[in-house]
Amino acid sequence: MPKISDERRTERRKQILDAARRCFAEHGYEGATVARLEQEVGLSRGAIFNYFGSKEDLFVELAVQDSKRISDVWVNEGLEALVREVLELDPAWLGVNLELVRRVRTDRDFRKRVEKRQEALGPINRARVEQAQRDGEFRDDLEPREIGMFVNLVLNGLALLRAQGEEPPRVDLVVELLEDAIGGEARSSTRRRTRP
Amino acid sequence: MPKISDERRTERRKQILDAARRCFAEHGYEGATVARLEQEVGLSRGAIFNYFGSKEDLFVELAVQDSKRISDVWVNEGLEALVREVLELDPAWLGVNLELVRRVRTDRDFRKRVEKRQEALGPINRARVEQAQRDGEFRDDLEPREIGMFVNLVLNGLALLRAQGEEPPRVDLVVELLEDAIGGEARSSTRRRTRP
Repeated sequence: MPKISDERRTERRKQILDAARRCFAEHGYEGATVARLEQEVGLSRGAIFNYFGSKEDLFVELAVQDSKRISDVWVNEGLEALVREVLELDPAWLGVNLELVRRVRTDRDFRKRVEKRQEALGPINRARVEQAQRDGEFRDDLEPREIGMFVNLVLNGLALLRAQGEEPPRVDLVVELLEDAIGGEARSSTRRRTRP
Repeated sequence: MPKISDERRTERRKQILDAARRCFAEHGYEGATVARLEQEVGLSRGAIFNYFGSKEDLFVELAVQDSKRISDVWVNEGLEALVREVLELDPAWLGVNLELVRRVRTDRDFRKRVEKRQEALGPINRARVEQAQRDGEFRDDLEPREIGMFVNLVLNGLALLRAQGEEPPRVDLVVELLEDAIGGEARSSTRRRTRP
């Protein structure tokens, strides 16, 4: 195989990942056969698997891409942008993630591989929560991981709703309720509990 | 086929549903073949499909059972019991529900069948939220469906966590945060946002 430049390799990786994401979303994880991946990517299986060792590797890479982007949005743009980001994920792609939940639960090695690839994000997300606590954006009577847990519940609930094809709730309402739960001093003064 | 009493029919239905639930949980929806269902139930396919027309009917019936029980717990025992109930659902069975999310999104008829079977629960759950609003248990500056939406997000987030085999969060913490978001006058006085 002829040597190709780093730039060309990066481009190829992106081409393969983008096409694999579309292919998984359209056919589901099981339905995204190697033949279909070849067709969607426009490269032979030899070329594809030269970049990613297996179909599973492709899926893990895409899941890690999502986690990184979501973490980025959270760190740089805050809670409302985070909720918007999750609501904009493709329902069909979210469904592929759900198809693999059984696998995550029952296949210890698979689970560890995914976690390993995402472990760098933990401290970054935690630091952002701590900053928000210092700024009074989030309450500081809870541990950062407790706040992260609750935000995650709500985001996962949104993802599941989207994957089922249901109408998403209003972003401002979700953000308001989330802030009522985890907001700090800077927030709680605006609270209104009864009809004016 | 000989006639059997109503009581015997009810017993048989329960026997089939309980076994089908175990079979789906163990093998996944696709993996729960008719042969495996026969073995787990201990009846022939003819007998099983005399009670439920298809494997899909069995699944829908089990999903409706869950919704009814969860609604019952909510109406009769309140928010904390509701959170506990969801955390006690079998992760493997929750995973089967996730396997069918693609189907719910893409198969309009399937979706309508499930919704039709659950539509009686809507007004019951709504009446319970309205009661909680009158009692000051829940805030009354939001519509009941807005409150229900947020509770659902959190419950679905919990279900997804469980299906992935992750350690569940503390019930009291989830309930506290949920009440901080949707609680009414009776609740908000106990709020504490900063370390004492």
